[in-house]
Amino acid sequence: MRLSQLILPDLDEAFARDREAVAELFEELHTEDFADLIERAPIELAVQMLLALDPEQGAEVLASVEPDLQVELYRRLGPERAAPLVHEMPSDDRADFVAELPDADADALLARMDPEEVADVRLLRQWEDGTVGSLMSTDVLAVPATMTVDQVIGQVRTHGDDAETVYYVYVLGPSRELMGVVSLRELIFARPDAAVAEVMREEVKAVQPAMAAEDTARLIQHYDLIALPVIDDQHRLLGLVTVDDLSDALAEEVTEDIHKMGAVRPLEDSYFGTDFVTFVRKRAPWLVALFVGELFTGDAITWFDDVIQRATVLVSFLPLIISSGGNSGSQSATLIIRALAVGEVNLSQASRVLSRELAMGVTLGLLLATIGALRALLWGDGGAIAITVGLTLVAVVTLGTVVGSMLPIFLERIGLDPAVSSTPFIASLVDLIGIVIYLSLASWILV
Amino acid sequence: MRLSQLILPDLDEAFARDREAVAELFEELHTEDFADLIERAPIELAVQMLLALDPEQGAEVLASVEPDLQVELYRRLGPERAAPLVHEMPSDDRADFVAELPDADADALLARMDPEEVADVRLLRQWEDGTVGSLMSTDVLAVPATMTVDQVIGQVRTHGDDAETVYYVYVLGPSRELMGVVSLRELIFARPDAAVAEVMREEVKAVQPAMAAEDTARLIQHYDLIALPVIDDQHRLLGLVTVDDLSDALAEEVTEDIHKMGAVRPLEDSYFGTDFVTFVRKRAPWLVALFVGELFTGDAITWFDDVIQRATVLVSFLPLIISSGGNSGSQSATLIIRALAVGEVNLSQASRVLSRELAMGVTLGLLLATIGALRALLWGDGGAIAITVGLTLVAVVTLGTVVGSMLPIFLERIGLDPAVSSTPFIASLVDLIGIVIYLSLASWILV
Repeated sequence: MRLSQLILPDLDEAFARDREAVAELFEELHTEDFADLIERAPIELAVQMLLALDPEQGAEVLASVEPDLQVELYRRLGPERAAPLVHEMPSDDRADFVAELPDADADALLARMDPEEVADVRLLRQWEDGTVGSLMSTDVLAVPATMTVDQVIGQVRTHGDDAETVYYVYVLGPSRELMGVVSLRELIFARPDAAVAEVMREEVKAVQPAMAAEDTARLIQHYDLIALPVIDDQHRLLGLVTVDDLSDALAEEVTEDIHKMGAVRPLEDSYFGTDFVTFVRKRAPWLVALFVGELFTGDAITWFDDVIQRATVLVSFLPLIISSGGNSGSQSATLIIRALAVGEVNLSQASRVLSRELAMGVTLGLLLATIGALRALLWGDGGAIAITVGLTLVAVVTLGTVVGSMLPIFLERIGLDPAVSSTPFIASLVDLIGIVIYLSLASWILV
Repeated sequence: MRLSQLILPDLDEAFARDREAVAELFEELHTEDFADLIERAPIELAVQMLLALDPEQGAEVLASVEPDLQVELYRRLGPERAAPLVHEMPSDDRADFVAELPDADADALLARMDPEEVADVRLLRQWEDGTVGSLMSTDVLAVPATMTVDQVIGQVRTHGDDAETVYYVYVLGPSRELMGVVSLRELIFARPDAAVAEVMREEVKAVQPAMAAEDTARLIQHYDLIALPVIDDQHRLLGLVTVDDLSDALAEEVTEDIHKMGAVRPLEDSYFGTDFVTFVRKRAPWLVALFVGELFTGDAITWFDDVIQRATVLVSFLPLIISSGGNSGSQSATLIIRALAVGEVNLSQASRVLSRELAMGVTLGLLLATIGALRALLWGDGGAIAITVGLTLVAVVTLGTVVGSMLPIFLERIGLDPAVSSTPFIASLVDLIGIVIYLSLASWILV
């Protein structure tokens, strides 16, 4: 049972009866809960609900709903009624909101905004998606180093309401360069008449706007921070990025990696939010590419047609052999791709990985070879087949671990995303070589 | 070039020359950087470095290094010198630290700790790994509802230093039940003589200690919080859990899911931190299980030995056909597993997923069938082969999308982790059925 199923059906009537009472009820809902509710409401009702909120809460809700609904709500509201809401948004949400609108709508809105806000939106939109710049906010508390603790607390009281976070206050030198940081906690503990420059920490972790959101998320996680300041190359403060902005970015990044590992081109929207044609476009290219690659296995098999003619029993081991190579390769690729992503393995350790995966391949290969050879003997396929299958399995499983572990490292080295070396991709590569090894060995042993 | 390469070689000598100066230098390093440094130092030097810190900083560093090194350092320090460091740790780190020690060492340490701390450690260790209880801290700022804002700020000043976070203060009723929450930000903005009960928000998101860390991380992310209070079933405050504790847990969870999807049993340690034998244990069971499953494909093929004898060209399409089923299944499984994990798809939507994936399977299958049939015709394998290959591809690709999408949903429904339906597992399932479809069609069409 969802909250929305209880609330929405009666809301129309309630609005008609007592608008004030409904508005009061809304004030108690958490922004995210209200956003969930509005996403499930019919669009006319959604507009009414949004207008029943005070502009500040309305701005938060509008910033939190799905991008498609943002555009739809904006169109229903019109620029005149939307502008006050957009004015109340935090700077990062405002820039994202404008970016979602089609150009004509965006222009109509920008024409109704403060020139300062317009400049700010332009500044924030200049950074590419996936960078810190695209996620940062300019609503940051910054004070000159000459202030006292008491004066800084005064600043927090006055300007804190519009800031992205009040938990860190940044201390700036004469030309806005970042000199240090002081937390609200430290301000509370400090003597009120102390200079903020004495209280601040000078060692500030900071990032530049072009840095990848993923790397920044790792930094913020490693140092257990709530926010990081963003600075330009002259060390001047541009804004800040918070842990919640980054964790969303990181979750998207993980989804992208997982999709790539499953040979799907990353989706921009959710599973049900992606339409059928887009889905075909995301899945077909990889599937066709893998199919075309796998066509070569057909050629490889026809080269060995005579040996197959002589012993069709060879065919019955074919799927077993190629899947074993694919599976061991899949394991290695999965381990290495994730280890690279979280920084457990770096590029300089390629040879250490190789020697480990070689040993692993031989060990696992021998294990499967024993089972495979036993099976051949027990089913009465004869010693020659058993030896062929056994030797092939050792070779193919080792091939799998080596290709599976080295391909992601190679891709990372040449600057591509290692997650592209998906399980199906590795399996296809190993299939072809595995078949050639198997049938070559068979031709040689079964003469 | 790492920091450690610059610092470590000269440190021994520096210690001998001027211990004080080195200690001063250490104070400027961030805890996490110091922990990285100490992890790379020889153990004797590591002990010296730790002892050069003041107990508070030493406690933070000891809590941050790898578990194995924690045990080793504890043994070198002995309970006498370790106890003051452990005393300074936050309650959650302290409980984790004690849990890492072998029983005898843990007992020696507990014997030297305050009875209150010992009770606290026991309380925190009662929760299973992966629950909020195992991650929470009891160092929480809580005040009675009768206090004024000014008194609460006084409490923050006095006790804030030991608290996990000072950004939220929890307001409790007469029997410690959670009545509300007030942020440091709100306290700063409020009138000093106002009652905290007036200023607090009564709508507090809270979790119970048995809740999965993963779900809690999602909650904290959804509502953009920094921390969540943990309450018992009588709504009494037990502790709190912070976003950085949870984000570590979430990253581990993602790694586990990715490993499962690649048919590796989740590792407890990092790639290089896992020894060879453990690795074999993590990889061999899945590999053997998949191998044994795939043995049945051999049986399936031998049933159709006569049709293969008649047309060995059929064999050359076999790897192509089974890999296409595996690849489309892998795509669907990847999409659905991730969509379930992030909550984009829920169990009640199974039929919507099924109809979508069916349509997707037929579409993608027709695409590959066209290429496959063309290939058969162009290579002169004849119309009957082209038709067999084409029909099989439509069937196998559709089979892949259906099995790949439904298996994760089925696993989630029966209470298993959907990530267990790994790409290799789906591929094996589809391989067997795909071979039977292919060779049955061939027997029927090629008579």
